[in-house]
Amino acid sequence: MHEKLERLRSLDRERNLVARIGAVLGWDQETFMPPAGVAERAEQLAMIEGLAHEKGTLPEIGELLAALGSTDANPPGDPSLPPMDRAYLRVVRRGYSRAVKIPKALVEELARAGSLAQAAWAEARQKSDFKAFAPHLSKMLELRLKVAACIDPAKKPYDVFLDDFEPGSTEESIAKVFGELRTELVALLGKIRSRPQVDDALIHRHCPEAAQVALSEWVLDELAFPRDRARLDKSAHPFTTTLGADDVRITSRYHEDFFVSSLFSAMHECGHALYELGMAPAPEYARTSLADSASFGVHESQSRMWENVVGRSEAFWKSRWPKLQATLGDTLRGAGVEDFVRAINKVEPSLIRVEADEVTYGLHIILRFEIESALVSGRLKVEDVPAAWNAKCRELLGVEPANDAEGCLQDVHWSFGGFGYFPSYSLGNLYAAQFWEAMRKDIPGLDASVSTKAGLEAILAWLRRNIHSKAATLLPDELVKSVTGEELSPRHFVKYLREKYGRVYGF
Amino acid sequence: MHEKLERLRSLDRERNLVARIGAVLGWDQETFMPPAGVAERAEQLAMIEGLAHEKGTLPEIGELLAALGSTDANPPGDPSLPPMDRAYLRVVRRGYSRAVKIPKALVEELARAGSLAQAAWAEARQKSDFKAFAPHLSKMLELRLKVAACIDPAKKPYDVFLDDFEPGSTEESIAKVFGELRTELVALLGKIRSRPQVDDALIHRHCPEAAQVALSEWVLDELAFPRDRARLDKSAHPFTTTLGADDVRITSRYHEDFFVSSLFSAMHECGHALYELGMAPAPEYARTSLADSASFGVHESQSRMWENVVGRSEAFWKSRWPKLQATLGDTLRGAGVEDFVRAINKVEPSLIRVEADEVTYGLHIILRFEIESALVSGRLKVEDVPAAWNAKCRELLGVEPANDAEGCLQDVHWSFGGFGYFPSYSLGNLYAAQFWEAMRKDIPGLDASVSTKAGLEAILAWLRRNIHSKAATLLPDELVKSVTGEELSPRHFVKYLREKYGRVYGF
Repeated sequence: MHEKLERLRSLDRERNLVARIGAVLGWDQETFMPPAGVAERAEQLAMIEGLAHEKGTLPEIGELLAALGSTDANPPGDPSLPPMDRAYLRVVRRGYSRAVKIPKALVEELARAGSLAQAAWAEARQKSDFKAFAPHLSKMLELRLKVAACIDPAKKPYDVFLDDFEPGSTEESIAKVFGELRTELVALLGKIRSRPQVDDALIHRHCPEAAQVALSEWVLDELAFPRDRARLDKSAHPFTTTLGADDVRITSRYHEDFFVSSLFSAMHECGHALYELGMAPAPEYARTSLADSASFGVHESQSRMWENVVGRSEAFWKSRWPKLQATLGDTLRGAGVEDFVRAINKVEPSLIRVEADEVTYGLHIILRFEIESALVSGRLKVEDVPAAWNAKCRELLGVEPANDAEGCLQDVHWSFGGFGYFPSYSLGNLYAAQFWEAMRKDIPGLDASVSTKAGLEAILAWLRRNIHSKAATLLPDELVKSVTGEELSPRHFVKYLREKYGRVYGF
Repeated sequence: MHEKLERLRSLDRERNLVARIGAVLGWDQETFMPPAGVAERAEQLAMIEGLAHEKGTLPEIGELLAALGSTDANPPGDPSLPPMDRAYLRVVRRGYSRAVKIPKALVEELARAGSLAQAAWAEARQKSDFKAFAPHLSKMLELRLKVAACIDPAKKPYDVFLDDFEPGSTEESIAKVFGELRTELVALLGKIRSRPQVDDALIHRHCPEAAQVALSEWVLDELAFPRDRARLDKSAHPFTTTLGADDVRITSRYHEDFFVSSLFSAMHECGHALYELGMAPAPEYARTSLADSASFGVHESQSRMWENVVGRSEAFWKSRWPKLQATLGDTLRGAGVEDFVRAINKVEPSLIRVEADEVTYGLHIILRFEIESALVSGRLKVEDVPAAWNAKCRELLGVEPANDAEGCLQDVHWSFGGFGYFPSYSLGNLYAAQFWEAMRKDIPGLDASVSTKAGLEAILAWLRRNIHSKAATLLPDELVKSVTGEELSPRHFVKYLREKYGRVYGF
């Protein structure tokens, strides 16, 4: 049995190695590649993807899984195995079954159609022309529904999709959580809107890119971003990617009239990177499928905890104010830290998700969840998406898009068939607040502790011990129960928002 | 026949695609990779190398070659095929035969031993301890001799090695060329040493890295370095690498007390890059083994032509002097272009090859050629290398190393078994001068034309037409004959040196 497991890990590590080679190619494409390199790079990526698929669907993997008792009905396999090995079998079985159940022709059609749909989406968004994108959206939906039917025809397709991002979640469980969240967010937003608005002019003062880079690098040092295992570069959109167990890259972008955008992007991506760099369930599982995140939502909890809970707190900036002012030169001359903290926490309903504040962000996600789950179940037709979007936007946020570019065409996700992805973003906020509450029990004076580097290190050590090192050994609901003693609930996040925005808006 | 050729090209393109993926991994390792990423990167590279070897030794390639009439005795195959197809078969046959003739165990042993030898060399050089390196050198020599016996037991091993770098060359042909060159260089050096020495203090003035980067980028623009297909980055040692037919990367390094080092590295690597980017024998041969250099020496001719013939000329700098001064800020304040041109052309015998001037460089190479050819043929024993080195150094250059670090341990090449590599460097200078002479017939006022961007563009167009686009369709001796109408001869290079250094040293 031990030899079979080791053989399985060895095949898995090889597949993982190929995937990391693909990550190097992808990172370079987004950061440094000269533009004309794109055609050949696409072929290089296709070759690596093909090879990874080959390595991930080897019949020997299926034979080893079967010999270890792992089946679709009983993924963790032989009950006599230690829990970590059973968790590993569960993870490998899941990936293997998904990979072998989808016919190669369908995989290739999805890749082609997705590539066309993404290009069509980019053009349609630019022209604010939903009709031009609609046939591509229909095609991606049709193909993804075929995929769902291959994986588990007995399950609701949206639940199959959710499983890719948040294993164990269902439309029903998400709807329940989001239902509670929605009520609370709408009420809180009402309270905030009854108070005088915050003035955030100071974070729109001009700030040269070089100063922003220096700021990001300094803050990354404060967050113990490990320079020997990670680095920050520039790209069109911020992202994190793992090129090796000891090689994680993050990127940021710089707007000279909105310097906090790059600052919080760096903190956000740093949170993802620290998680990636801490996934060490056991030495024998290094570089295997078990050294992965518990879910997209848990991953997002790490980025949002550092960005929002830590990075938008008064305690973090109060002790660092002189250094922040000095790093930015003229930009913050004459400003006070209280005004800065209020400015970075301004709440204002807006049309664009990626620019939303912590309070309205959840409403943007609920809007998308309701529309995509209706689309996938057939309750909503593709052609009716714009009208449904605009109505929900008005209902939830009180604002309405003037066109589809700032409405239902704003996000890329559906164009690559990523139905079920959006909920993870909001779940991340919920996990983060709930983990933070649990951390309070172990770290006295937690909220104030972010003022020092030692305090931040203690937080990272706690996360390493309780979350990062667990990697994918626990399902997200198991993880949240083991760490916090209860099921995922929006109440911690709501409490956090109420207290924080009560201070910011004075109620 | 046509279908077989196309199938061969298709398999070859696939092997090439894998090799380019390896180039991406290698480039990233030398430029941006965080240090701790090295272990996993080595595994990624090993996987890609294994895959490239697999794709390059497919039995189907052997079958296609045979079907097209290509054998070791008749590499270009069927005489009825057009010349370009025959050149292609010659190139593929060569690579395929070499790859399949060397047993996998020997390849792996070479990789392992080479990796150990390189590490041992680095340490031995640091400690100036040849004895510690000697067993590794013996091992590499032994393994490389085995390789030579696999490839062609009837040939002298050194000729087999030379064939890897300069197809068609032999120890005898190189010895003949170097014999003539040696006499001339020694005579010229004697003349130079009889004249007052040039003062080069101004090129050792302090110059910040940022100013050097700006200088390199400007000069690259002057040389029509295509930004959409290439870029410059920083690494420990300057190099050029091809990540795709439209994606070539060059690197440089910056010494703040010797700014011309980065300047000439950029021009040198730019020459390599322009060659790589111009290798387009015919559309159907894009991304195949035919889209490669004629030889290492021809490659080196392109880098040295731009670096030395163009980049160290008075005409190049005279018109650009105000811009050069402005780009460097304080560094060249008060200096004159005549002094600058003299400084960048100072000749002085020294111990280190990579720091040598144009005149003494050839003597450094002759020294290495004589030692390595004696080693390979058994005329010289490994333990006697230091003494032989020091004696030849005194004889050729009039200086003697105080220790082996600045003597026979200074270069990395032998540690990876690269016997036969060194001659290419000098052949590059010879080709460059001979090509330049041929160019004179087509471009009136060639030497003066480098003063304008249009003039440089005309030179590049000539190189594209006569050399770059030919790629590997011609053997180096065929290329030099077709371009210059005669065999390779040191006389053009010697004439170039005499005229130039006559001006610099006033004789």
